[in-house]
Amino acid sequence: MSTRSIPVVTSSNGTRNRGRKVAVIGSGSWGTTFAKVLSDAGCDVTVWARRPEVATEIQVAKRNSQYLPGINLPKSLKATDDLALALKGAQLVFLAVPSQTLRQNLLDLEPFLDRRSVLVSLVKGVEQTTTMRMSEVIIDTLDIGPERVGVISGPNIALEIAKEQPTGAVASCVDLQVAQEIATSCSAPYFRTYVNTDVVGTELGGVLKNLIALAIGIVDGVGYGENTKAAIITRGLAEMTEFAVASGADPVTLSGLAGLGDLIATCQSPLSRNNTAGRLIGQGYSQEETREQMQQTAEGITSVPPVLELAHERGIVMPIVEQVQMVLSGTMAPKNLGPHLATEDDVPRPELRLGVPQPGRWERFVNLMKGKSA
Amino acid sequence: MSTRSIPVVTSSNGTRNRGRKVAVIGSGSWGTTFAKVLSDAGCDVTVWARRPEVATEIQVAKRNSQYLPGINLPKSLKATDDLALALKGAQLVFLAVPSQTLRQNLLDLEPFLDRRSVLVSLVKGVEQTTTMRMSEVIIDTLDIGPERVGVISGPNIALEIAKEQPTGAVASCVDLQVAQEIATSCSAPYFRTYVNTDVVGTELGGVLKNLIALAIGIVDGVGYGENTKAAIITRGLAEMTEFAVASGADPVTLSGLAGLGDLIATCQSPLSRNNTAGRLIGQGYSQEETREQMQQTAEGITSVPPVLELAHERGIVMPIVEQVQMVLSGTMAPKNLGPHLATEDDVPRPELRLGVPQPGRWERFVNLMKGKSA
Repeated sequence: MSTRSIPVVTSSNGTRNRGRKVAVIGSGSWGTTFAKVLSDAGCDVTVWARRPEVATEIQVAKRNSQYLPGINLPKSLKATDDLALALKGAQLVFLAVPSQTLRQNLLDLEPFLDRRSVLVSLVKGVEQTTTMRMSEVIIDTLDIGPERVGVISGPNIALEIAKEQPTGAVASCVDLQVAQEIATSCSAPYFRTYVNTDVVGTELGGVLKNLIALAIGIVDGVGYGENTKAAIITRGLAEMTEFAVASGADPVTLSGLAGLGDLIATCQSPLSRNNTAGRLIGQGYSQEETREQMQQTAEGITSVPPVLELAHERGIVMPIVEQVQMVLSGTMAPKNLGPHLATEDDVPRPELRLGVPQPGRWERFVNLMKGKSA
Repeated sequence: MSTRSIPVVTSSNGTRNRGRKVAVIGSGSWGTTFAKVLSDAGCDVTVWARRPEVATEIQVAKRNSQYLPGINLPKSLKATDDLALALKGAQLVFLAVPSQTLRQNLLDLEPFLDRRSVLVSLVKGVEQTTTMRMSEVIIDTLDIGPERVGVISGPNIALEIAKEQPTGAVASCVDLQVAQEIATSCSAPYFRTYVNTDVVGTELGGVLKNLIALAIGIVDGVGYGENTKAAIITRGLAEMTEFAVASGADPVTLSGLAGLGDLIATCQSPLSRNNTAGRLIGQGYSQEETREQMQQTAEGITSVPPVLELAHERGIVMPIVEQVQMVLSGTMAPKNLGPHLATEDDVPRPELRLGVPQPGRWERFVNLMKGKSA
């Protein structure tokens, strides 16, 4: 099985999608933006909004003023608050709801689902109660085969795409043909979609980048500049890759748009919640104060302990994530977080270790950290 | 021969470098900053400055107010305008002069050089008249073996390092032991140095990143956001890697600090000349106007034609660099530069192709571009 991403034939006039009926579940900024992409790619798109007034505004005024202020949506885009109506005849069902509500949303839509339809997650995150990835939640909840489940990920800040600023993404499914079908449905002139069959790598990129974005936020808050951030992104990608490969991913996926691409966009975006949370912590606010100020917990912060636990089990060293954890727990000052720290000074090793766990490294690392933080 | 970067024992108290005499040739911002790093690593450092007043200021006031305003240099740092004095007893000679003057500087210092000393290039660029890399210029001019020539590269914006903001770099030499020696000499608490034996990859990373920084500047000037830039960096790294590998580099080097790390820092830095030049062009200024406004030609602009020529010869497709060239020559509007364009829509291919030239791709690409720009 090759997991290399290959591109899909882009059809700027949308003829390849003529008559293709698709649904987008969720009308937040990403759901609405993605509905626009699908529509601009020539699909027949219906957005489902939980709140009737949002559905009405999209359907009638072709606007979503709460989530996408100033953006004109395509004339052909439809919206409804009726799940049955949204799903009627939909060959592809794109899911754009909060990660922790995905399971309930799936249960709600199950009765109306065509049994040949493909479900595509647009959601980045893991279910906290089960630590399942979103595609796993779909398979688990609906009890369907993995060939009916896809994911899309990449450097995809919603508002920029809504403004038709060019970018790309990866559509992933264990079945390459299904991945191609998903990618074709959303290939618009400003949105280029590639395909791969590495669902694990494609999803983990979107989860793990939040941990590195926290580190970037922290050093940003301290006042460090571009060198420090570039070094953390570079080494952070190596950590992400090692973790993902130990989870069954192809390292190539992490070097692509769903890994490096998403990581860079998230680390640079002032809109990223993880970035913002890190910056507040780097400026000296406590976790508690940061949560209060942001009125929510950044996803990356909740992911740090489970990711590190899994890493320890697998013998993977993640020095940057480890340092983030130390800063969060107050055992390391934010200004000490850096690419130069927490590495095994006494044991030569490769600059980048893409997915090659090295036995004994974890123990050496623990000893080193004990010495450093003592 | 392994070209994987392995780290060097960092000695924060500098005992490993006690008595190590080194010289830095050039007292611009990078030369002076690097002299501080070497000094903070415990070396006995003398900077050579062409202008006596700069040498005196560093020697007496421990300042270089023109190039590093506000930075206090180490008390132990020495400076002179006398080449013989600077080179006396120097085991390592670090070169930090403009790329186009390196050859003449080497001729000037040759008479005073210890024949066992190692020369280390801190310079990023190619000699325009010969298209040689800096290490090649050193070998060619001094007629010495490659085991006496090293390079250092990474995400190294001088002023940030002078402020002791943490970062890393790679020291490279075909002889691993020499690379280790170079790296040890400059491993300071805020500057972590790794080693590899891939001189070609380490140097090419520093040259090719300027071409991608131009593209980033252009889309920045147009007004595109973080998605577009992240996608261009991701795909740009793939192009850089393919080109470097065809030149004999190890792809791992390009994924490290001297490749990806340097690329990200350069693309994000508002101080980068290539970034600035691209931005002006993206805003609609002509090449001529940009040159006038900057009072110089950005290195990246002069590198575009020779890099593309070499790429064509080798059958390597570099769609982003190609688009930069089209924007520079006025055959493409800056707003059309993007990761979604200039790809072979009709031929599926991997998302990332790290160093795997594919026969016939160049011809298909040319045909496609003709169609697009017609």
